[in-house]
Parts: sequence; structure tokens; C-alpha cells
Amino acid sequence: MSETNFDAAEFRRALGSFATGVTIITTRSADGAPVGLTVNSFNSVSLNPPLVLWSLATSSLSLPAFQSSPNWAVHVLAADQHGLSGRFAKRGEDKFSGLDTEAGIDGVPLLRGCMARFQCRTAFQYEGGDHVIFIGEVRAFDRNDAAPLVFHGGRYAHATLRDPPEVQPRSAHLEGSFGDHFLGYQLGRSHFRFLAQIRRYLTDAHLSDEDFYVLSALTLKPGLSTADLDAGMAGILDESGHRAVESLLQRGLVRRGAGSDAELELTDSGRDSALRVIGAAKAVEEQVLQRLGPGEAPVLKSLLARLLNVIDPAANALWQEKNLDAGAPAAARMR
Amino acid sequence: MSETNFDAAEFRRALGSFATGVTIITTRSADGAPVGLTVNSFNSVSLNPPLVLWSLATSSLSLPAFQSSPNWAVHVLAADQHGLSGRFAKRGEDKFSGLDTEAGIDGVPLLRGCMARFQCRTAFQYEGGDHVIFIGEVRAFDRNDAAPLVFHGGRYAHATLRDPPEVQPRSAHLEGSFGDHFLGYQLGRSHFRFLAQIRRYLTDAHLSDEDFYVLSALTLKPGLSTADLDAGMAGILDESGHRAVESLLQRGLVRRGAGSDAELELTDSGRDSALRVIGAAKAVEEQVLQRLGPGEAPVLKSLLARLLNVIDPAANALWQEKNLDAGAPAAARMR
Repeated sequence: MSETNFDAAEFRRALGSFATGVTIITTRSADGAPVGLTVNSFNSVSLNPPLVLWSLATSSLSLPAFQSSPNWAVHVLAADQHGLSGRFAKRGEDKFSGLDTEAGIDGVPLLRGCMARFQCRTAFQYEGGDHVIFIGEVRAFDRNDAAPLVFHGGRYAHATLRDPPEVQPRSAHLEGSFGDHFLGYQLGRSHFRFLAQIRRYLTDAHLSDEDFYVLSALTLKPGLSTADLDAGMAGILDESGHRAVESLLQRGLVRRGAGSDAELELTDSGRDSALRVIGAAKAVEEQVLQRLGPGEAPVLKSLLARLLNVIDPAANALWQEKNLDAGAPAAARMR
Repeated sequence: MSETNFDAAEFRRALGSFATGVTIITTRSADGAPVGLTVNSFNSVSLNPPLVLWSLATSSLSLPAFQSSPNWAVHVLAADQHGLSGRFAKRGEDKFSGLDTEAGIDGVPLLRGCMARFQCRTAFQYEGGDHVIFIGEVRAFDRNDAAPLVFHGGRYAHATLRDPPEVQPRSAHLEGSFGDHFLGYQLGRSHFRFLAQIRRYLTDAHLSDEDFYVLSALTLKPGLSTADLDAGMAGILDESGHRAVESLLQRGLVRRGAGSDAELELTDSGRDSALRVIGAAKAVEEQVLQRLGPGEAPVLKSLLARLLNVIDPAANALWQEKNLDAGAPAAARMR
């Protein structure tokens, strides 16, 4: 316990270890102007009577409005509302400009698209050091299912449901086998399961898995050499991958560029084939992701992106850089 | 806004949409016994003076202890402390039995392994409907880096950092190509990148990728038929997979069982080969996961498990069931 060394930054960091949702609290000032600010000191207090609380700095420019108006509304923000959170966290801007609000009790401006809204009337105001604690009686509320915006450690976070204990991995698998608890196994299975769902589109297009890998890579980066492909594809372009390149060349889906380093690029029909399968893959992906819980798809993607960065940062950087160079013109060409 | 239909369950659900961390708050009763309970109504109030607050039900058996003792400690729980959270959420058990605590200010019991601890003295007690609001002045605190335990929607959740805006996927990739924003692409790349890191162990063991898939599957479920393998492996056992089985049979790593349905099982040397590579894969995996942020590995694994369940629930159930049947004896045999 750091009793002696009690500095404000460290104290703030310690407080920040408690995760919270994010709210915007709105009211009207005495002259009728809409007022709102981002607050994460919200919490529930009482069920009967229904009370909630939050704290406002005594230095806040919004304090007079909340002291003169007994009516205010708490908006619990959804994961996709971080832009709104940022807007209402700044001082003195015209925060409501361009926002589509509704009028709540006593004309309090209500924001749309939130996870929950509580329309309150101040029941008590309490002293809290450099803050005032507002206790509000809830007079009306509504709620939507959505993924929450979370604040932790001074940054925004995602929240995803934990597995209930009964679906935790069984230890019997772990002793020496390569079971569902292992990342390598999960990645392999997910990849092949995903591929299995688009394989009939590949079959229709007379493409093998390797053909598809090569074509996809070329949609990202036209002008790859075989060596580039090898490096970027982490060695999956072994024998059968090289056979795929030869076969794609023979079938006129890929051609060698004019350059001296014999770069590969898609022909028109190769591009058509690739885009047709990629379109199907995207449709499959959308169906799959919709069956995950709300808000979980971006978390999974974000963690996989971080994983990729960690698994092979050097190769990943190389590959990304190439994408960056060619990304915009490639996309333009392909539209 | 559901002004008319204000029922308690729905109100509780609406309040639950605000995510919170989880704390345990401890003190000593008048007779010196340790007292503690799980609380998620904690929040910070003031930096100067340093104040925090939480609410306690007027019906709580712990209320007299907190009213008689001005000293108490708030423990912000880490993701791996959900067991502790459950223990202190129940009524009237001997919650401290077997716990290794330290003595804080005034002998308040302090728990170990938390994200942050705040030792407080009651500054104010305020009325809050069916709860009492305790405002504590923080006299000492400490903090550890860890992933937080989060509560949301009435259940435990994981929190993972959101990507800062600058690393969000670039839209130039998305028009028609199969870029890093796509799950199918991420899964394929992650899988092959992961495999690339263990490929030298495969090479040392003279195993192809397909050999490894088949051997891994057989460590999970001895006695698979080729048809089982085909079904369970989502069609990756195409031509080259069947060649792998033949090659493993020829090299004495796999044999056909005595049964009439010609099931496959590992030989001793096949098992040795598989376990050696799996051991290497686990070591690689541990290194990789350590480079993710704190607490992110279990979230990634949990989301991938859910994804697998969603991608092909029928096949996944079949495969899991087989694992369950054979899991324990297989593991025992392999030790």
C-alpha cells in the first residue's frame, strides 16, 4: 500500500482499474439551451424508490444547469456510440449541433440509439469533495439490447460475455492432445470450417483451396512475384501452391506482367472468378457473424488482428506495407 | 419510454446495461470478525480530497458492521477472481475461511491478487432509498496491471481494449478484395502463420501439414474411421489428406484397428511423433499469447469457441461428443 506516495496520477490510474460503462447526462439550462456531458461516475442506488446517482465536478461549466433544473436524463451508451462519448466529453462546444434528439420530460433532450435511458428528477444533492453527487429518482426509462461502450484504464474497451462455467474447456483434453482449448487447434478448425462453407463456390468456379489463396492475394496486391507470395503466405505456397500458380497461368486466370521480375497479376477472368468467390465468402461471413452475440464480431476481429501482429510482426508489417502501397489503385481498378 | 409499465425486473435489466467492474468491500465487525461482500455500485467521486463511494442495502446483514467501523477496504477484482466474487456475493457463509488475507489499517482484512485496493475511512453516510451510500476518504491504495472482472447485463463479462481509431481497417481494401478486415482472411492467415511457426518441428518429424492434422485428430479420438475423419475435418481430408493417411499407415505411425469398420489409431511411434509436435505447438502458443494484452487470450479463445459453434453447430456437436466419449481414457493412455 502506497500510503506515503499518494500522487494524483497514480490515484487516477488506480481508480481507472474499475471498469465502467459510459453515459451522457443531459438537461436544459435556465435559458432553455440543451446541456450534456459524458459521465462514467453513474451507478444505481436503490430499486424502491428507483434511484440512481452520478457525480459532477464543482468546477464544471454545466453545474449551474443541473442545479437549476431538477430534470435530467442519463443515456447509457452502446459500443458504437464512442463518437458521441468523445463529443460530449469536450468542453463548451455546441455538442447538440446536428443531433437528432427527442424531447423528454420537461423538455430534457433525449439522445437516440442508446442501450438504456433514465429520465430522472433530482431527489438529493450531496457533498462529495471536489464533486457534487446527484441522486435522481427515475421517472421513466427504456432499454435496447446492444453491446455496451466500456471505459477501463483510461481507454475505451469492448465487453464480451464470459463463458458460463459449464462450457469451460474440459481438462481431460489437455493432458497431451491438441484439443479445443488450444489456439492452434481453434485457428485450424475455424479456418477449415469457414472454408468448407464456401467450398461449393470454389468448386463451381473450378478452383482449389490453393487457387483461391493465390487469387485472393492477388486481389490485394497485384504485381506479386512468386517469391513475394511465398514470403507473404507463410510457406503455404509449397509444392501444391506452386502447382496452383502454374495451373492458374495455364487457365488464363493469372498472367505474368511485363516487368523483368516476372510479377503475377490477375487477368480479367481471374479477377471475375476471385471477386465472385470473395463475394460469396463475404455473404457467408455475414451470416456467421450475425449468429455471434451482439457486438462480438468486432472484438473477435480486433483480437485476431492483434494476434496476427504478434504471431509474425515482421512478415505482417511487410505484407501490410505492400497492401498500403497498392491498396487504393487496386480497389479502384476492381470496382 | 415505458412510463406506465415500470416493473422491477425490467428496471433491473435497464440498470444492468451499465457495465461495471466488481469489487469486494471488507471491514471488521464490532466483535472483530472479518466482514466482506461483493459490490458493483462502487465509483470514484473526488480527487481532492480523494473520495470514493458505494451503496449498501439497508436490509444487508453487513450493514451494522459498516455502521460501527469507520474503516473499510475496496478491492477491485481481476478477471481471474470471479470465484472470489461469487463467494462474497452469497449471504452468511464463512467467506474468509481458507483465504490468505493481510491486515490493513485498523486490522481491516485485505485480499490478495486484486487489480486495485483502496483503504478508506467513512467520510459521509447518505440516504439513498433502500440503500445507504457510503462515501469514503481514501487513506492508502495500491494497484496491479491485470485484466478486469466486468459485470454486464447480469452476467460476468470480459473487457478487451478497443483499437484506437488509427489502426481501424482501411476502407481502400474493402471494395472487392479479401483484406485484413475479413474474418475468413484473418482465420486463414492466423492459421497458416501459426502453422509456419511450428513447421520446422513438423519437418524434423518428417510430417506434412496433412499428416499433422490426421495425427492430432487421432490424439483426440482414437478409433476414427476415414469417414469420421472426413466428416470431422470439414473436407480438408481431400486427395492429399487421404494420401497422408496412406503414408502414415506405410510408415507405421498409424494402424488400422481390429474392428470390422477399419478404424484408425496411433501406433506408439505415431503417438510419440504427435505429442512431440503438439508439445512444440503449445510452447509456441504460450509465447504468442503472452504477447497479447493481459487477459486477452481467454477472450480470443472463448470467441473462437463460439465462432466454431456457430460456423457449423451440427458438425461441431458431433465432434465434441466423440471427444467427450474418448477424452478421458485417451488422455490417460497418453500420459
